Amino acid sequence: MGSNLDITFTRIVDVPKELIWRCWTEPELLLPWFCPKPWKAIACEIDLRPGGIFSSTMQSPEGVTMPTGTGCILEVIPNQRFTWTSALLPGYRPSLTLEKCGTDDAGFMFTATIALEDHVVDTGIGTKYTATVKHADEAGCAKHAAMGFEAGWGAALDQMVAMIKKGI
Amino acid sequence: MGSNLDITFTRIVDVPKELIWRCWTEPELLLPWFCPKPWKAIACEIDLRPGGIFSSTMQSPEGVTMPTGTGCILEVIPNQRFTWTSALLPGYRPSLTLEKCGTDDAGFMFTATIALEDHVVDTGIGTKYTATVKHADEAGCAKHAAMGFEAGWGAALDQMVAMIKKGI
Repeated sequence: MGSNLDITFTRIVDVPKELIWRCWTEPELLLPWFCPKPWKAIACEIDLRPGGIFSSTMQSPEGVTMPTGTGCILEVIPNQRFTWTSALLPGYRPSLTLEKCGTDDAGFMFTATIALEDHVVDTGIGTKYTATVKHADEAGCAKHAAMGFEAGWGAALDQMVAMIKKGI
Repeated sequence: MGSNLDITFTRIVDVPKELIWRCWTEPELLLPWFCPKPWKAIACEIDLRPGGIFSSTMQSPEGVTMPTGTGCILEVIPNQRFTWTSALLPGYRPSLTLEKCGTDDAGFMFTATIALEDHVVDTGIGTKYTATVKHADEAGCAKHAAMGFEAGWGAALDQMVAMIKKGI
């Protein structure tokens, strides 16, 4: 399956992958960076095992909360690989009800993987950070791309790296 | 989540769980029993790992082939627990395209788990066999039940047990 169904971006960052892993998998470390400002993440639930919950709630600058959906964790390889999907709820239950099917929500089914690898940088050992998001079809992928997926996840990553450098 | 979203059935059978496991996970052992006669399974692909493929093709008594869909394996605990879902394709890609969304296909998204436990029977150690199928909503669950899920899977299990007793 190919490029028209996936969005992927890779960045080299000068913080260790073990700290990035913690920022993705510990709710209290995820909240501060997960939403590009001026949005913010105000709630997060993570049950770090295949079949466990991954969910977050965002708040707009105007104070409107927006649940970003409840996903199911699929892969947990500490410090290396974290995958979850919006196509399943915790316990692997399919998420898309007939009621929602055919609405805009259906377009955003995706499976996201964060892959982390050691990478030598000027200051020592940094991380090659690869985020990949898979979709069922080109329409869903294009919709996700048009929402500014890459810019959004890139801005969030910048916030995470800044937070790690301040010390966590 | 509860009873109106799931179909489950439990049977005590007098064959060991290790052989049932093989019948569910080795294509050449799955083909002979997987479809209640006079239908038959004519093809099957299994890549036995989380993220791997689980797919089969059935043939009607009239010789019409019907792919029953390509699913993604989620849990592989040898001799104990096997889970796959139709909501994802191999590699965890969401399966439901916008094109299919809202059609009958969308009603059959499910996640199936086969759970096996030792159970003492007259002839020694048999198996407590539990099949559970989870749906996103009551409508999908009711539709699956109305298709004769339990009778179908029960008849298939009978075929599997008869095959094991003949020797595999």
